Amino acid sequence: MRAALMERGRLWVEDVPDPTPAAGEVVVKSLACGICGSDLHAARHTEEFVATSLEAGGAFKLTTLKPVVLGHEFCAEVMERAGALKAGDLVCSVPALARPTVLPVGYSPDAPGGFGEYMLLSERLLMPVPSGTPKEMAALTEPMAVGRHAVNMARLDGDEAIIVIGAGPVGLAVIANLKAAGAGPVVASEPSHTRRQLAEALGADTVLHPGEADAYKLDEVRRRERVVVFECVGAPGIIDDIFLRAPPHSRIVVVGVCLQMDHSRPLIAVNKELNVQYVLGYSVPEFGDTLQDIAAGRLDVAPLVTHSVGLDGVADAFEALAQPDAHGKVLVLPWNS
Amino acid sequence: MRAALMERGRLWVEDVPDPTPAAGEVVVKSLACGICGSDLHAARHTEEFVATSLEAGGAFKLTTLKPVVLGHEFCAEVMERAGALKAGDLVCSVPALARPTVLPVGYSPDAPGGFGEYMLLSERLLMPVPSGTPKEMAALTEPMAVGRHAVNMARLDGDEAIIVIGAGPVGLAVIANLKAAGAGPVVASEPSHTRRQLAEALGADTVLHPGEADAYKLDEVRRRERVVVFECVGAPGIIDDIFLRAPPHSRIVVVGVCLQMDHSRPLIAVNKELNVQYVLGYSVPEFGDTLQDIAAGRLDVAPLVTHSVGLDGVADAFEALAQPDAHGKVLVLPWNS
Repeated sequence: MRAALMERGRLWVEDVPDPTPAAGEVVVKSLACGICGSDLHAARHTEEFVATSLEAGGAFKLTTLKPVVLGHEFCAEVMERAGALKAGDLVCSVPALARPTVLPVGYSPDAPGGFGEYMLLSERLLMPVPSGTPKEMAALTEPMAVGRHAVNMARLDGDEAIIVIGAGPVGLAVIANLKAAGAGPVVASEPSHTRRQLAEALGADTVLHPGEADAYKLDEVRRRERVVVFECVGAPGIIDDIFLRAPPHSRIVVVGVCLQMDHSRPLIAVNKELNVQYVLGYSVPEFGDTLQDIAAGRLDVAPLVTHSVGLDGVADAFEALAQPDAHGKVLVLPWNS
Repeated sequence: MRAALMERGRLWVEDVPDPTPAAGEVVVKSLACGICGSDLHAARHTEEFVATSLEAGGAFKLTTLKPVVLGHEFCAEVMERAGALKAGDLVCSVPALARPTVLPVGYSPDAPGGFGEYMLLSERLLMPVPSGTPKEMAALTEPMAVGRHAVNMARLDGDEAIIVIGAGPVGLAVIANLKAAGAGPVVASEPSHTRRQLAEALGADTVLHPGEADAYKLDEVRRRERVVVFECVGAPGIIDDIFLRAPPHSRIVVVGVCLQMDHSRPLIAVNKELNVQYVLGYSVPEFGDTLQDIAAGRLDVAPLVTHSVGLDGVADAFEALAQPDAHGKVLVLPWNS
């Protein structure tokens, strides 16, 4: 099959052997697969990503020794009957192969991701895409499930003002899920003009440029008893900046994944009795609920997708996303040229 | 009055004017007053302490411009009838003067602390010490209330294994309150031999040297579904070390006050979905409950006090506490020579 390979930051397209399914696995066609911030991190900082993942006992099985096919935000097509599914049916799946040691799809040399023509999925993890749902929308299930899980972990009681820092794909997923859950007011803080427009399209009640206005000083924020801040940037210094600006007793939900060493001043957090909840991923039920909400239109994700490319465009898309200003979600469509 | 003064780290005893009460305030004799880790910080790093406190919008009103009488862990004696209290009665109080702008007793040039012969207290904040309670035990109300508040903020449900990192006065207060609340098993990790003995005396179920055993690997910890870690050291790097060692979904209650910039790797906390709750101080009811528990013997704090000094011994005691190995709580008894 043709696939975009990544090794230590280099990306190229090559013909590689089709993946061979183990027992309980099926071969599927990758129809649409989003480029995730973690993919960019993994490509740009492969060694650090591998080292820190290992140290954290985390799920990623990336190595610096072999090329991988990235891509874990996919919608795929079943090629042969599999359980109740027939050839041509669209499916999603949490990006994991249920082997004795679970393999992360798109982060393991043995579980190629969606930036190639074919991939392996575990039959028992397949979720049929409700009919009529475009593959581009179904492919957003994974990133939207991240937002759903973050909102669930925030245990909102409805009385909080909500500030979302950063309206990249993670922040936008959080915003869409907050609005779908009826939470708010939701204030989004984001320096990029394009992303501010996306935040508005996804339902944020107030959208501002952090250099031009202070989210914490807005009336709709100050009126509330408590503030919940969703950190969706994942860069060093962001959490410390929230420590400094947030009012006492704020809760901070860290959804952005900062790979580097970070720094902060605990005395400030202590003085305000802040709470920091780090979150990761989603559960299988959260993933399934997200797919259903997208299919039913309860999560309107269409504005999120701003570009799509074929396999030959993957390397350029990774380059372009290094300048996040102009982009929402970029989809890879492996069967398009 | 005679008082131990502190200015930018220098400590000396001097005769200063007796403090003058404002409306609603009474002059009391300081009978016993503990030296707190924050006092040591404030003396050693005055400028940083002042700058960060200001930035944090915190309670401390220390300045680098005037000497202060430190000391906020006190038991005092009423000198004239005040409400239901008569001369000679022992009292405690949260260390705050209830003026239009609240002043922190022992951290403001206008609200001298307990390391002097006399101090001011707000009449309506006075709490009578139940009769028969020694002044040395009543003086431990303040640091023990810090432990009580931390335990309350941890919202324990009884199923957690509990690890206390650091058995200085803060860690010991946490341990005593955990045991008084029936929580446990409580594992204390502390390099100092003296402090490990104190942790045992205060009821810790398992006490270990962090260089010799790993608290997270103990059977009594691994058996439990969840781990709650009380960070009671307050030095850079400790939180990151907890991130690395703690099992997934651990909750970390930060009671130690780290004044310096700290560093940690968010990716590790994200991978484990850790929660960090920063806590500070206590409420007035928590303070009052603590005094009652000490008086009734429900909190056995006697083992905590390892030394006492008169005013002339304050400077040396600050020096000695820079080597924390040999000390529990050191009390200043201003009326002893």
